Amino acid sequence: MRKVTFGVGNSLDGYIAAPDHGVDWLQWTKEIADISATYWKTIDTVLMGRKTYEKAPKEGYPGVRNIVFSRTLPEGSRGSLEVIAADPAEFVTRLKEQPGKGICVMGGGELAATLFDADVIDEVVLNTHPVLLGSGVPLFPGLKRRVDLELLAVRTLENKCVLLSYAVRR
Amino acid sequence: MRKVTFGVGNSLDGYIAAPDHGVDWLQWTKEIADISATYWKTIDTVLMGRKTYEKAPKEGYPGVRNIVFSRTLPEGSRGSLEVIAADPAEFVTRLKEQPGKGICVMGGGELAATLFDADVIDEVVLNTHPVLLGSGVPLFPGLKRRVDLELLAVRTLENKCVLLSYAVRR
Repeated sequence: MRKVTFGVGNSLDGYIAAPDHGVDWLQWTKEIADISATYWKTIDTVLMGRKTYEKAPKEGYPGVRNIVFSRTLPEGSRGSLEVIAADPAEFVTRLKEQPGKGICVMGGGELAATLFDADVIDEVVLNTHPVLLGSGVPLFPGLKRRVDLELLAVRTLENKCVLLSYAVRR
Repeated sequence: MRKVTFGVGNSLDGYIAAPDHGVDWLQWTKEIADISATYWKTIDTVLMGRKTYEKAPKEGYPGVRNIVFSRTLPEGSRGSLEVIAADPAEFVTRLKEQPGKGICVMGGGELAATLFDADVIDEVVLNTHPVLLGSGVPLFPGLKRRVDLELLAVRTLENKCVLLSYAVRR
């Protein structure tokens, strides 16, 4: 079974963006770039919601299968990019059973919430930044169930962000 | 200047209680009791909002000055308990300048948000639990400004909660 991972940078009070969707507080360092590059080698598929895709490269990320879930964009494939109107939960459930490498859930927490509800996400990694935003875009808007986690690793980064890795308990 | 600290147990997605105010997911262990007892020795004053006071001992916590901020409860003192209608920000600003030990902001995040807005909180400690609640009572409802923090310590507890300690940057 392929592993599905969701990772994101968050504020200490649980937001992934300011109310204006601003992320100027997010820190991107060589250390986190190296961590991302190492992780990227373990995956071959990236999942995005429509809003995340609008901020991603139009042709998708290089070297991976890019799947965009949307009921408004025209369905179809071009290059490594596929726009799919199907239910993400059912689609990802089947995708996990196919042979392949890891699967990355990108971007905001809406798609992640849908996939947590369907219990197809296996790991969550938060890069917790030393800031309180007070309000903004919450981590998993619309998540309908409680998800019990198991701490896998805690790593304090050079810039004093804290990388918290968890497996979903089943 | 006396140090003002806010500490609370939170879910990984930034809630301090479920939508029904439930906290059955909060873990209370000997280890966290010992950490609390050690911290308790450094303070002599506890600050509460009205909602937190309603769940606290009616006579307040023993061995400390208990200050309850409320515009609806009758003002006045009995024993070590004081009910105060004054603006919490102004009151705590003055309180910090008086001689004494540390000051603890108890309970939910509403009072803490008011005091963060007024920049009188010095440290925040979150006991991050391995659970996603998806919705509920957010950490600092109504916090109006961005608060930059400095990571002081990260401690993984025996029960795999992660204690994150921060100083407020000024």
